[in-house]
Amino acid sequence: MNIIELIRKKRDGYSLRKDEIDFLVSGYSKNKIPDYQFSAFLMAAFIRGFNSEETAYLTSSMLNSGKVLNLNSITGIKVDKHSTGGVGDKTSLIIAPVAAAAGVKVPMISGRGLGHTGGTLDKLESIPGFKTNLSLKEFKSVLKKCGAVLIGQTNEIAPADKLIYALRDVTATVESIPLITASIMSKKLAEGIDGLVLDVKTGNGAFMKNQKDAVKLAGSLISAAKSFNKKIITFITDMNQPLGNYIGNWLEVYESIKILKGEIQNDLYNLSIKLAGAMIFLGGKAKNLSEGETIAESLINNGSAFKKFTEIVKAQGGNVKYLHNPEIYPESIFKKIIKSETDGYVKSINTYKLGMAAVELGAGRLKKEDNIDPKAGIIFHYKIGDRIKKGDVIAELYSDNKNSILNIKNNFLNMVEFSDRKVYPPKLIKQIIKGD
Amino acid sequence: MNIIELIRKKRDGYSLRKDEIDFLVSGYSKNKIPDYQFSAFLMAAFIRGFNSEETAYLTSSMLNSGKVLNLNSITGIKVDKHSTGGVGDKTSLIIAPVAAAAGVKVPMISGRGLGHTGGTLDKLESIPGFKTNLSLKEFKSVLKKCGAVLIGQTNEIAPADKLIYALRDVTATVESIPLITASIMSKKLAEGIDGLVLDVKTGNGAFMKNQKDAVKLAGSLISAAKSFNKKIITFITDMNQPLGNYIGNWLEVYESIKILKGEIQNDLYNLSIKLAGAMIFLGGKAKNLSEGETIAESLINNGSAFKKFTEIVKAQGGNVKYLHNPEIYPESIFKKIIKSETDGYVKSINTYKLGMAAVELGAGRLKKEDNIDPKAGIIFHYKIGDRIKKGDVIAELYSDNKNSILNIKNNFLNMVEFSDRKVYPPKLIKQIIKGD
Repeated sequence: MNIIELIRKKRDGYSLRKDEIDFLVSGYSKNKIPDYQFSAFLMAAFIRGFNSEETAYLTSSMLNSGKVLNLNSITGIKVDKHSTGGVGDKTSLIIAPVAAAAGVKVPMISGRGLGHTGGTLDKLESIPGFKTNLSLKEFKSVLKKCGAVLIGQTNEIAPADKLIYALRDVTATVESIPLITASIMSKKLAEGIDGLVLDVKTGNGAFMKNQKDAVKLAGSLISAAKSFNKKIITFITDMNQPLGNYIGNWLEVYESIKILKGEIQNDLYNLSIKLAGAMIFLGGKAKNLSEGETIAESLINNGSAFKKFTEIVKAQGGNVKYLHNPEIYPESIFKKIIKSETDGYVKSINTYKLGMAAVELGAGRLKKEDNIDPKAGIIFHYKIGDRIKKGDVIAELYSDNKNSILNIKNNFLNMVEFSDRKVYPPKLIKQIIKGD
Repeated sequence: MNIIELIRKKRDGYSLRKDEIDFLVSGYSKNKIPDYQFSAFLMAAFIRGFNSEETAYLTSSMLNSGKVLNLNSITGIKVDKHSTGGVGDKTSLIIAPVAAAAGVKVPMISGRGLGHTGGTLDKLESIPGFKTNLSLKEFKSVLKKCGAVLIGQTNEIAPADKLIYALRDVTATVESIPLITASIMSKKLAEGIDGLVLDVKTGNGAFMKNQKDAVKLAGSLISAAKSFNKKIITFITDMNQPLGNYIGNWLEVYESIKILKGEIQNDLYNLSIKLAGAMIFLGGKAKNLSEGETIAESLINNGSAFKKFTEIVKAQGGNVKYLHNPEIYPESIFKKIIKSETDGYVKSINTYKLGMAAVELGAGRLKKEDNIDPKAGIIFHYKIGDRIKKGDVIAELYSDNKNSILNIKNNFLNMVEFSDRKVYPPKLIKQIIKGD
């Protein structure tokens, strides 16, 4: 096979066969196809697109570039959840223990913060001692013992995805539905799961700004999951404001603890119940979604979910005293309060900028090499539609960086729009698509 | 400026500004933009296209990546010719001396063989002693003395073109009209010319297989030439059969000598008169094309053109005894005769394959490092429409490589199609477009 002919084929809008896509992915992974040829191919693929067969082939090639976990030795149905990413989205921390408490097996491989969005790994690592870089043996052992385990992508899992993603990032070929689909699915399939709950975010804090694109991506993910005979349920959910009220790594663990203890019932709680319910249903522990949700709620109310969380954290080396007494966690050096300068209703929040503000405070990375400050972040007290009075505390900022916190403080109110007239909150769950 | 944003802009079909294209070309030339980003940009440009302003900007950026010759010290109007390439196309060797004999200044920078097509430099170098790698000082001195000079692209001339061309070659981004336009025009404009005669080839031996694409390319080249205030006349000419009867480097010099001496009057002669006539007209030595042609014919008939050729060859170090007595040139070790196995009319010739056959005999390079055998090639005795009888000698093959010549001989007749019924020859000159 000739790489130039394959680039030409995609360039001219033709579909590629399975063996051709295998040749491209394996050639690139094995360093036989240079970056400059693969990036020309990626751009052709970006513009010309892939049909659903090609997307499945690409997923399969990327999946098979590494190890596919065999979890047959662990009884039970294995179900994971994937979110396309947003601001304040910490549902993984909540629903993994809830689903595990229900008897579902949750082998979760997560990512780090990307751009304005946070990452589950960074959040977990804010718990002192918590190890996300388990070996695959340890991974299985924690899964067996606790019913859930949360780690990072190892070099053994879909290495082609890592390479291709890095190249896409610097060649303006990220926002392609087939490429995103293959990237997500190759990693998730490598986990050895039976079912997957997908949370596709849409709105000004999501990668998919409008619902039409979110539905398209959901369709592509469902089609890829089906071609591998995996059960899948997809939620299209709102990301026009942060999920929950806490943004930043430890702050999000803190909010998750509160949810798991049943102390907060906000949008984050509602979505977590929905997603956990779907996992419980896919995991064969409920007859339908609604029963799954009821089970999820009762596992929070009776304390099992929080108990399960402490088990998992302990098994992965985390110090559980911070879960039992989150107040003892160290605070940021600087704290600033943002007060409203007006009366009115919260009309809109620039969620992207809010996420970037949290990054600047220390909660994320501007460059790959940057260190994360687990304490840094933002507590945003209101939701779209909330009534606000002049002088109300809208938000609290936390950072060890004086310049950053002053800069964010001075510009904070530009990220929020108020209205004199009543504003209705956006619908949290826009659509549920079952993949069967 | 951000390279990823510029790739994204072209990817999404937007036009680029002059400063943006300058940033891309100069960044790539100076090794500040890596291959993998530039190739993603090239693919986006290939698929999304460039408008005529962008094409002019690209031409200008590539032109200004190197030296632009200043030929002000040489009196007279400077005119060059460029052909998009074909099989047996040796008009440069004929029309440069004809136009120079008419008093036009011809500063010609040519290329080497590419794929199935021959290159003027390779042909000239088949003349023992002929130097194509003159310094720019020697270039000017020969031009001043002889009125014409023929050299290769130096590192000083449009170096960005060389780099970009090499990347296009391996990323399936060659056949793009704006990219081809900028590549041709940046080199030609660097010669310091006032006018340009363009020969855009179309047919099964050309890069542009159909006339529609050839006319499109011509339009793009004319528009670029105009934006630099250069006079231009474009010919769209047939390349469904070799031009003339000789293919291979010395064989083509041999045929050119015959034409310049007025001993052959075939399609090659006819096209050469047309192209030389246009150069003479653009060079201000004739009132119109037709007068230019008359002058060209008379310069051949009165011996001035051949004399001028010997002057140029001598000035560039070539041994002119081979021009006066071409028969003394060494012959190939192997010679094979192809005879017709049928009666009929020549209906079609696979000109691409014929060109590749000449390459395989030694007249071209299959790999960049290959050496050229100046003696190797094919004499093809017939033209489309010619009547042929069984046993007639259709072609002669010349090579020092026994395996190649046997292989070509065995497959030769597959490249020619015969018909029982009369066939009309294709029109040689399909269109003349004056750029004013």
